[in-house]
Amino acid sequence: MSNLAQYLVEKDWHQLQQWYAEHDSLEIVNELYRLKPSELAIAFRFLPKDIALDIFESMEPAQQGQLITSLRDVQARELIEELDPDDRVRLIDELPAKVARELLEGLDPQERKMTSILLGYPSDSVGRVMSPEFVALRQSMTAAQALEKVHRNGRDAESVYMLPVTDDYLVLLGVISLRDLVLAEPDTIIGDIMTTDVYSVQVGEDREKAARLVQEADVIALPVVDMEGRLVGILTFDDAMEILEHEDTEDIALGGASRPLEMPYLSASVKNLAQTRALWLLVLILAATLSINVLNFFEQSLEAVVTLALFIPLLIDTGGNVGSQSSTLIVRAMAVDEVRFGDLPRVLFREMQVGMLLGAMLAAIALVPISLVFDLRISLVLSLSLVTICLLAAATGALLPMAAKRLGVDPAIVSAPIVTTLVDSLGLIVYFLIANAVLGI
Amino acid sequence: MSNLAQYLVEKDWHQLQQWYAEHDSLEIVNELYRLKPSELAIAFRFLPKDIALDIFESMEPAQQGQLITSLRDVQARELIEELDPDDRVRLIDELPAKVARELLEGLDPQERKMTSILLGYPSDSVGRVMSPEFVALRQSMTAAQALEKVHRNGRDAESVYMLPVTDDYLVLLGVISLRDLVLAEPDTIIGDIMTTDVYSVQVGEDREKAARLVQEADVIALPVVDMEGRLVGILTFDDAMEILEHEDTEDIALGGASRPLEMPYLSASVKNLAQTRALWLLVLILAATLSINVLNFFEQSLEAVVTLALFIPLLIDTGGNVGSQSSTLIVRAMAVDEVRFGDLPRVLFREMQVGMLLGAMLAAIALVPISLVFDLRISLVLSLSLVTICLLAAATGALLPMAAKRLGVDPAIVSAPIVTTLVDSLGLIVYFLIANAVLGI
Repeated sequence: MSNLAQYLVEKDWHQLQQWYAEHDSLEIVNELYRLKPSELAIAFRFLPKDIALDIFESMEPAQQGQLITSLRDVQARELIEELDPDDRVRLIDELPAKVARELLEGLDPQERKMTSILLGYPSDSVGRVMSPEFVALRQSMTAAQALEKVHRNGRDAESVYMLPVTDDYLVLLGVISLRDLVLAEPDTIIGDIMTTDVYSVQVGEDREKAARLVQEADVIALPVVDMEGRLVGILTFDDAMEILEHEDTEDIALGGASRPLEMPYLSASVKNLAQTRALWLLVLILAATLSINVLNFFEQSLEAVVTLALFIPLLIDTGGNVGSQSSTLIVRAMAVDEVRFGDLPRVLFREMQVGMLLGAMLAAIALVPISLVFDLRISLVLSLSLVTICLLAAATGALLPMAAKRLGVDPAIVSAPIVTTLVDSLGLIVYFLIANAVLGI
Repeated sequence: MSNLAQYLVEKDWHQLQQWYAEHDSLEIVNELYRLKPSELAIAFRFLPKDIALDIFESMEPAQQGQLITSLRDVQARELIEELDPDDRVRLIDELPAKVARELLEGLDPQERKMTSILLGYPSDSVGRVMSPEFVALRQSMTAAQALEKVHRNGRDAESVYMLPVTDDYLVLLGVISLRDLVLAEPDTIIGDIMTTDVYSVQVGEDREKAARLVQEADVIALPVVDMEGRLVGILTFDDAMEILEHEDTEDIALGGASRPLEMPYLSASVKNLAQTRALWLLVLILAATLSINVLNFFEQSLEAVVTLALFIPLLIDTGGNVGSQSSTLIVRAMAVDEVRFGDLPRVLFREMQVGMLLGAMLAAIALVPISLVFDLRISLVLSLSLVTICLLAAATGALLPMAAKRLGVDPAIVSAPIVTTLVDSLGLIVYFLIANAVLGI
């Protein structure tokens, strides 16, 4: 047990506060994330105010929500008041409606107004996660005047590293980085040095797409505009990275047959853990009953040559692995927009070539040891099955996620686990058809 | 076929250049990444110089290497000369030694010197990926003087958003962000407003660890120091994110039973694709032969009750899925340092509880339909097997990656695919032992 956990168990608040004083906020957060949820709420109450805010900001919204509901009203309100508007909106999305309303009512009018504006945008839009506080410049300013404006007004802005340039009606004309502003000669006119060839996104755009654009264009922030091209906020680099990290975590979880946990592993309860996995297991076991039907259909072949059963796990594992490889690769390639639905014929053709190549390699290697122990005809059945199964598995692994995307379903949902399960039944059919033909059952 | 690909096939260089002129660099890069490698080299030669550099910088080092070797000498040298020193080092690591040496010799002396310094650090260290060009301030400067120094010397630095403050011997004393510098009153003394409680890393530190620190501490750049605490470079936020994205991609690929591809999907050849997967499939099929031995051992039971064979795919799939869930979760939790080896007993206990819970749920649901079709004793065998297999699979899925990390092996290597394969044999043993006991075979 860590010192921190021990002080909590012993209710030694003095030692606890001592421990906080001796560690920096990264060390503290690392230990807090290893506590049970109930312990975390208590440990949190004793944190010095400024560190508490830092740590609260670094938490995932789901974890913030869990914590907020177990804190005293005053502390909860203070924490929420201090959050940036976009982070506050993400937290409110996680809270029960009643708690969220109470918290909103407790905010000061200016903060409440800003929060309500963000809450008005659709739930997956960039509007919900953008920062509405920015410093906008004018074309006619000199670099010195612009720097002076940042100096005066920059304190409230979440970021001042990308400075949008607008006209009187807030229509976006260009951007300039704080770096270029500092490097420019003081009397340079902003209009002459700003970048006019600017990437920007509509406020209703999907947040993952916007975040991906920040990464691809390698910009420190992206202006967000409304339908009339007026600037309404900026999406900063770190918020974009958080969105992408979140999407990656979701894809990784789905690839491992569960929903994402949304909080540190040790902070989650056994119930939390089971909940994120139960639904997927149910769906997959239902899909797997298909294999019972397939085997039932071929039961006579199995009774005639029981040896055939010995290779079932090896064949379906291999098919599953080849299918996982293809689906994992294609899901990732689609996530970063390297592959689109129109590429389907090209992708399928490539994957089938790869599958056949891999199947042939495995068959060639497996043939020798297996023919030493078993009938040569069994080896033949196995080799033919391996090639066919690998080919089909690679094609299925590519096809399913691409078809899902076309149908508007997240491709990650039909990734490795689903592909593996479906390829199993397909593989078994192939195996027994080949066995029946070769062995003449 | 896209317009771009068509112009290349038709060798219509005029239309090609026209097309380049009409599209921005993100649109161009998206289309370039969909060409075959041979086409890419030709398309690249016709790019306007400044766009060519932008696009070259955005490529993965492996892809840069492939391209460089097929370009004319002059263009290759120009591209490499323009890269930041850290990006150049990453590229050089990908090139054959002879090509790398020639390119280094072609650099101007100043660039060559900086490149050689970075190349002197160990291959996975932060020294290789840091930026050696920075603007360092002094404690005694006023904010106005500091800003003036950035104005004069900032052009060569990769980033000026985090400004290190050092003494005469370049020993790091603190940092100040460009934002705080601009917001400060001009006559403020740097020593009074700099942050002295600074996270920094040793130049020999593992690059992933350093990148993770940038993310956790949410800083825009991290000072890199030598053994004496002297500043030698900075690791910028975007380079850190690139490192983490690279590690995530690697973990995702390993979770899908292959090595990462290191280039856009459509730019890779069928041979590239097969190569990244072949070794893993071989290892896994060898591990899967274990299941043949297990089934061979229980062949008598199978002959006595062929019905037992029907449930093999369903049981090993379910075990595999539960194992995947655990290993995926634990690999991710260890990657972000939420779980360490010392937590093993706690993690194992939690996972076994989760596994048992999930197994019991599946058994309860499966029991009814199966007992309608099959013998009640078969249902009993299945239910008991499901609970035991899920429990063992969850424990194995947690144990293997944690043990791997302890042994200094990347935990992602023993993630889902390996766990699934090993849990198969374990599950089959459990299944037949239970069947033999219940059915009295």
